[in-house]
Amino acid sequence: MLNHKNMNIPESGLKRVVIIGAGFGGLQLAKKLRRDKFQVVLINKNNYHTFQPLLYQVATSGLEPDSIAHSVRTIIKKTENFYFRLAQVHRLDSKLRKVHSNIGDLSYDYLIIATGSQTNFFGNSSIERYALPMKSILEALDLRSLILQNFETALLTNDLKERERLMTFVIAGGGPTGVELAGALSELKNFILPRDYPDLDISRMNIHLIQATPCLLDGMSRASADAALDYLKKFGVNVWLNCPVKDYNGQIIYMGNGEEIESANLIWAAGVRGALIDGFEVSSIDRGRLLVDPFNRVKDYDEVFAIGDIAAMKNDKRFPNAHPMTAQPAIQQGVTLAKNLNCLAEGKKMKPFRYIDRGSMATVGRNKAVCDLPWFQFKGFFAWLIWMFIHLVNLVGFRNRMVALTNWIIQYFQYNKSVRLIIRPYHRVQPEKKEKVGLMEN
Amino acid sequence: MLNHKNMNIPESGLKRVVIIGAGFGGLQLAKKLRRDKFQVVLINKNNYHTFQPLLYQVATSGLEPDSIAHSVRTIIKKTENFYFRLAQVHRLDSKLRKVHSNIGDLSYDYLIIATGSQTNFFGNSSIERYALPMKSILEALDLRSLILQNFETALLTNDLKERERLMTFVIAGGGPTGVELAGALSELKNFILPRDYPDLDISRMNIHLIQATPCLLDGMSRASADAALDYLKKFGVNVWLNCPVKDYNGQIIYMGNGEEIESANLIWAAGVRGALIDGFEVSSIDRGRLLVDPFNRVKDYDEVFAIGDIAAMKNDKRFPNAHPMTAQPAIQQGVTLAKNLNCLAEGKKMKPFRYIDRGSMATVGRNKAVCDLPWFQFKGFFAWLIWMFIHLVNLVGFRNRMVALTNWIIQYFQYNKSVRLIIRPYHRVQPEKKEKVGLMEN
Repeated sequence: MLNHKNMNIPESGLKRVVIIGAGFGGLQLAKKLRRDKFQVVLINKNNYHTFQPLLYQVATSGLEPDSIAHSVRTIIKKTENFYFRLAQVHRLDSKLRKVHSNIGDLSYDYLIIATGSQTNFFGNSSIERYALPMKSILEALDLRSLILQNFETALLTNDLKERERLMTFVIAGGGPTGVELAGALSELKNFILPRDYPDLDISRMNIHLIQATPCLLDGMSRASADAALDYLKKFGVNVWLNCPVKDYNGQIIYMGNGEEIESANLIWAAGVRGALIDGFEVSSIDRGRLLVDPFNRVKDYDEVFAIGDIAAMKNDKRFPNAHPMTAQPAIQQGVTLAKNLNCLAEGKKMKPFRYIDRGSMATVGRNKAVCDLPWFQFKGFFAWLIWMFIHLVNLVGFRNRMVALTNWIIQYFQYNKSVRLIIRPYHRVQPEKKEKVGLMEN
Repeated sequence: MLNHKNMNIPESGLKRVVIIGAGFGGLQLAKKLRRDKFQVVLINKNNYHTFQPLLYQVATSGLEPDSIAHSVRTIIKKTENFYFRLAQVHRLDSKLRKVHSNIGDLSYDYLIIATGSQTNFFGNSSIERYALPMKSILEALDLRSLILQNFETALLTNDLKERERLMTFVIAGGGPTGVELAGALSELKNFILPRDYPDLDISRMNIHLIQATPCLLDGMSRASADAALDYLKKFGVNVWLNCPVKDYNGQIIYMGNGEEIESANLIWAAGVRGALIDGFEVSSIDRGRLLVDPFNRVKDYDEVFAIGDIAAMKNDKRFPNAHPMTAQPAIQQGVTLAKNLNCLAEGKKMKPFRYIDRGSMATVGRNKAVCDLPWFQFKGFFAWLIWMFIHLVNLVGFRNRMVALTNWIIQYFQYNKSVRLIIRPYHRVQPEKKEKVGLMEN
């Protein structure tokens, strides 16, 4: 733990806005704050922004990790009164108006929590131990390595049960991440792995998607959910509805309906919760998120704001339990809060946040996507094109867009996913062994 | 250590050719052997081929690692009588005609050692401990992380000496790797880092290139060596000639001329040696390489061949100490040996290897390269274009070529190197601490 006074950031005479998190919300805010009124400090645990909607393509060898990550220092080009720090913030000290991090403390005039969300295992430590999350580039890379390692290992065994366990992939959670991941795995199964592993019977590769509720893609229209289910079934994915995952021991998945699936691979896309830092009063926290007013101000904290996944705003009738934990609310709150803070600096009144629902979409695979716009739904090839276009233009950085586009065009015509690379092997968590009796005597 | 009988590869009735290493030579051989005459088994420690000439661009944030790696299973498309195994071969047992690996033994009829080379620290364990090699994608990624971490750390200290130590990069070895790396680092210094770190005085970033002999680019023409030296000096690189690196303790580099450089970063590009496996007689080994006859057959081993960096062929008058350890001899030996083994299978006579020197080249930076063809030398913009063209067409995989081209075009016009990402932080080797006296008493 280092301790650099104020993270070596000079005093400027201006009010200091500290933003924690360079996700969709934090970036918008950092870009749009007036630098003649504020000194802006952006803190992030990585030196890059992660484009989370495409993590599943990294995990399934479709895109290289570097094309969905973009260096924060490159994104924020105007350097006047702007400071970036690579740090992990642990705790808020609102009395002293400070945050504590692994590289020292930093005082603030305004603090914005934009830390996003993290995987929620709902307190099941066994699932947390053995299942694979997919919320960061490192986790997506681990998953990519593991998928490929499984097939290399399967080649070496003649125990068909063990082979099938290695080749069975179970995804918990039928939201967009789960659906898109299941679709991408089915493309690997249908087009690519039979060429790579002619000695393995790839038809014995099983892909299961398990959803606790009666419907896939919660929050999207029934028509889109049904279409996605239909596509997945056509691609050979086993979809289980109304079926929560109860437990997992690294070998067997126990489901709510009493059935079991033998698999060495449980991918956990079943829930997220706010990535909270320590130091907030319990009264300001609602199920892992920070309660905010319509100006994104955290309840009971005058100088602290929260935006994006970590913020729970309750006044929107359409979303009484707060906005969905996706990119759109984060981006819009980042933009609105920047305007509001700029207003504050000019002595003007702040305006309450109003969420504009631009719709949502999910892709299932080649030529197949579903799209809900505010007024109508559509699906199929056109939805798939729109999905690609939207994701391309929202990717951060011209180079990343060009590289992703290059990949997608080549993949489409070659029926391929090219980055099937085990750059760093993934080391599986081994089942806990019972301690030997008499160990102390040795 | 697993033990799968013959790595789970079936007997085919054909003679089995086992190739260890999927570098330039091993790949050519695997592609060109007749599968109706041989069962071909290719073993590699990674599931991908590494395009080593561009590792320096990965280390300096110019190219993503995935664009210079290509899955072996994708490269070798014809699967009949071909087997790939991801394994690390440890030892040869020529009496039993077997190799031993981490996944089991494998018997062979013909064995081809194509294991390439590894970093040579010439027995200096302190340099081996503290210096950074750059022979693999993982090492290049570690270097990329370290370079960027250094600047993030330099921001946090006001100790100017410590800051300068972090911002000083010393490259040992003035061959193509050292020259190209020094050039790429100078581009970071001149165009990119001043924008990223406006608070740091990047003019205090020092780049040193240290060469033990009187001339850079040993083996190239004097004109090219002088031109490279000239370019590097213009770019601000401090070049030390006639100056071997004597020692390094993680803080200070001790040079042969008695001078010292304080630096936290010594990059070791000063030598390679054959990546030998155990089990060969001493009489077959020459300075870490396997002595081979003009048919690439290892001395005293009738069924074992060696190609590329690991092979030392002594009968070429132009190269009495064996061919240079570069891609060209490896590729040509791979092709020739494939023909010769195919001849052997048809009962025809083998032909001795004849190396065709196609010339060599090195790039120093933007618009600046040197190129030696057999009949003439040239340099500058045209040499730089040729360098890019040659490297692009030799990159394995259409996707990789397109992604590298996309990167290079954007870099050229934006004066940028875009993948400045610390995906996995590098953990520096800490100086060894003296053991506490009385530790056992605690």
